[in-house]
Amino acid sequence: MTGSSKEQIISEDFMYEIIIIGGGPAGLTAAVYSARKLLNTFLIAKDVGGQVMWTSSVENYMGYQVIESDELIDRFQKQVDQFPVVKKIGVNVMQVKKINGGFEVTADSGEKFQGQSVILASGKRPRRLSIAGETELMGHGVTYCSTCDAPDYTGQKVAVIGGGNSALEAALDLLKVAEHVDMVSVTPLTGDPILIKKVIEAKNLTIYKEYQTEKILGEGTVEGIVVTDIKTGSSKQLDVTGVFIEIGLVPNSDMVRDLIKLNQAGEVPINAACETEIPGLFAAGDVSTVPEKQIVIAAGEGAKAALAAHRYLRRLPK
Amino acid sequence: MTGSSKEQIISEDFMYEIIIIGGGPAGLTAAVYSARKLLNTFLIAKDVGGQVMWTSSVENYMGYQVIESDELIDRFQKQVDQFPVVKKIGVNVMQVKKINGGFEVTADSGEKFQGQSVILASGKRPRRLSIAGETELMGHGVTYCSTCDAPDYTGQKVAVIGGGNSALEAALDLLKVAEHVDMVSVTPLTGDPILIKKVIEAKNLTIYKEYQTEKILGEGTVEGIVVTDIKTGSSKQLDVTGVFIEIGLVPNSDMVRDLIKLNQAGEVPINAACETEIPGLFAAGDVSTVPEKQIVIAAGEGAKAALAAHRYLRRLPK
Repeated sequence: MTGSSKEQIISEDFMYEIIIIGGGPAGLTAAVYSARKLLNTFLIAKDVGGQVMWTSSVENYMGYQVIESDELIDRFQKQVDQFPVVKKIGVNVMQVKKINGGFEVTADSGEKFQGQSVILASGKRPRRLSIAGETELMGHGVTYCSTCDAPDYTGQKVAVIGGGNSALEAALDLLKVAEHVDMVSVTPLTGDPILIKKVIEAKNLTIYKEYQTEKILGEGTVEGIVVTDIKTGSSKQLDVTGVFIEIGLVPNSDMVRDLIKLNQAGEVPINAACETEIPGLFAAGDVSTVPEKQIVIAAGEGAKAALAAHRYLRRLPK
Repeated sequence: MTGSSKEQIISEDFMYEIIIIGGGPAGLTAAVYSARKLLNTFLIAKDVGGQVMWTSSVENYMGYQVIESDELIDRFQKQVDQFPVVKKIGVNVMQVKKINGGFEVTADSGEKFQGQSVILASGKRPRRLSIAGETELMGHGVTYCSTCDAPDYTGQKVAVIGGGNSALEAALDLLKVAEHVDMVSVTPLTGDPILIKKVIEAKNLTIYKEYQTEKILGEGTVEGIVVTDIKTGSSKQLDVTGVFIEIGLVPNSDMVRDLIKLNQAGEVPINAACETEIPGLFAAGDVSTVPEKQIVIAAGEGAKAALAAHRYLRRLPK
């Protein structure tokens, strides 16, 4: 995405009508709907596509029986690019704070942007194990995206950490290419019975139920993990060259932690119109309390949030 | 849509897991999501497509820069038809009532259907003027859909009743084909300034602001309307052969009026997860309190409602 000619009019104290934080389906749809209402719109995001890019093909977006995820995002992006939406891609938003007449958004680049309203559509990120070796070996055998990285482990021994649907799906992805998969879960397997059945029946897979992953071993690249049987306390080393961490997602809501009361999971509470408890602040998609992670839902929520922001800015009745 | 082979297993006391009421974007998306969760799903609707079929082309559904409305609905329908969803199209649902273990849905055909959960996705219908001549001349000059019927009035004199965006859009549609358009509104024009400007500038259009439409005249077909100046009380007759009534929409929620407290507009109150106050009863799209009328929003809401129903049926945590 490139900035539009509108960028020339931005000065330090320029205030947009809407700032959209996030470039996934919710953020991109919010941008289209905001721009169609002729609102002066700014979109700020780490990347374009968000979590959609972690998957390969999509078969539950209405209107397409099957579509590649990058093609779908490309289509979303082209719809945004019809309009003079100003974009800033490649930065993280660190803080959203209330100022006179609106909000100030601070990016990790140090830049600050002002908006009369804000739509938070910043999605979720993978939860980390927070154990030794994880940060050091990230991208060198430690990964959070089986769809992205499974092919790199063809013929190798790998571990999947987690016991829910994401972990089960990662294991099934990896079974197709890896020599062997160890599945390590602190709980019994908790995902859909149909996935559990497939994993249990797989020949080249070992399940470590109620095992804690203690640390990730390796110099420069992953060489193994140490796991402990929670019931007996006995530890063992599993020799793997890849560790797929699939223990859930956390909302990217830290930037509003001082502004609004989050729920226990860290999500931004909204009503059916995507309004938060703070006038002018809206949330859409996975960062919000809407419980489902689906492209068509995130898109719908993004549209709702933009139209709610439009009503707010124009003082229109609901 | 044709019924699937599953229909053979239906007996009178058969209880579906989900009954979806409505065949627009919300209902069709709910059907896809419900079926993907392997829930035994029944869809009952007056028609397929709902309000989308009242429009011609769609340019704000994410994934398509522009798509004809019937093509989009055809694509939605094909996605439903991949699954063994049982369908009953062509009937109106008259009542939803609570029974032991779920709900009973009564159609105007007299048939009754039972479901453990219900998703109400029955949309909205045009509001009527409720004046003399309206019912008698419906389909004979009285219409509620300019997109559908404007071409039939080429070279004729017509009236548009209403002053909001739908009325303004109808007037602009009709200006392209009709000889003259009378626009009659009980209030000043209330729609978007850009539409009001276009209407005011039009040469072959007369605006009757703060005029009440009293009755529709004609034997067999429309021959005119009588309008009264609200301020002065003086009446006049406008000679028109078509009357386009565009005074808003009312939710199709009568079937749950005895079951649940509706809001003032007659909409079904829901939270951000499409849950109503009654466990097992969900609502999605225009019939609900979600304030916006958009395909992508209705689709997202349908998906949410189906996934919420799935959680309810399987007693899964939110």
